[in-house]
Amino acid sequence: MKDLLIIRDPKVAKIIACDTRWKMLMILRYQAMTPSQLSVYLGKTVSSVMHHLKVLEDRGLVELVKKEVKGNVIEKWYKATAKKYIISYELSEGRIPGSEETVKFTEDMARKAVKALSAFGFNINNNEELVELFRKFISLRSAALEKIANMQKRKINADYGSYWLLLTVLTYLVLSEDDEFKNILNRIKEYLGDFDESH
Amino acid sequence: MKDLLIIRDPKVAKIIACDTRWKMLMILRYQAMTPSQLSVYLGKTVSSVMHHLKVLEDRGLVELVKKEVKGNVIEKWYKATAKKYIISYELSEGRIPGSEETVKFTEDMARKAVKALSAFGFNINNNEELVELFRKFISLRSAALEKIANMQKRKINADYGSYWLLLTVLTYLVLSEDDEFKNILNRIKEYLGDFDESH
Repeated sequence: MKDLLIIRDPKVAKIIACDTRWKMLMILRYQAMTPSQLSVYLGKTVSSVMHHLKVLEDRGLVELVKKEVKGNVIEKWYKATAKKYIISYELSEGRIPGSEETVKFTEDMARKAVKALSAFGFNINNNEELVELFRKFISLRSAALEKIANMQKRKINADYGSYWLLLTVLTYLVLSEDDEFKNILNRIKEYLGDFDESH
Repeated sequence: MKDLLIIRDPKVAKIIACDTRWKMLMILRYQAMTPSQLSVYLGKTVSSVMHHLKVLEDRGLVELVKKEVKGNVIEKWYKATAKKYIISYELSEGRIPGSEETVKFTEDMARKAVKALSAFGFNINNNEELVELFRKFISLRSAALEKIANMQKRKINADYGSYWLLLTVLTYLVLSEDDEFKNILNRIKEYLGDFDESH
């Protein structure tokens, strides 16, 4: 199992920009599962799960880790090939042909996050500049994680909590040196005002 | 389902500082599951899973969401009560009687993360000052998430990806105004040196 897998191929990015497949990948990072277990977990038919697994397996995102014969049935266990999947900066910025859908997926996520700001008392629906700042935030965070992945010299030997902590600390460190990121944060702050005073 | 649940009770924090129960909570945030499904997922017996579920249910961390009669068996479906669980700052700083185990759990996580830095070419095993900086990083991040939870006025209506993005942006904003946090980051940076030059 790899630690971080950077996705640079727009076709692969398109494959995981699907709720069901994304959910499958998320759960298979923690635990190997059979198609029938996944079907219960996802509330989908076994044949639909098997189709999605094949798509993911063909792209090297999941792999077969165990086969077990039970009566006249062969149970196959699948696991994700990485602990974390990152869509590359170049791809999320739409600089690669075929990345249009990935950019749209990220933009939609940013738009929904901006809309959800109203739960915190900020009413700034449909502000396209803020959506763009949130989208850029995702992009620059991906770039930081790519840089971290490139620095890595060997496999990380740690449980999930410590692994998560290490990646989080390193991401903050890289981004704290990134002037474009600091600028994005400041511009978002201008929209939201001072947290201490307004709340 | 709540968005963020801040844990302030040391007894509750102790309950989730257990690998099996933590894993159960993580999966039940996404999907309701029965004890038998959980037993397959966790590789534990059904009776052990039922015991853990009872402990979590008694503390309001999971709840029964559906009952289904199948033949002479009643299937019970459980779900987590929140999307994200945060151990409060006061608790993780050990300022509340009974929080010793929680502090130890966080310290262990910090120690393992520091050890895993060697995978990036940094060889700083057993540096207790760096462990303390990592522990403080977790603590201050919890404080930021608590502040965000307190700002929240109503339930967030967004899918998991957008919800995660919004929380991440808000956490960066709150921490970018926190002088203690900036100091912690700078001190970690002093240990690790310039990322661009050394790698």
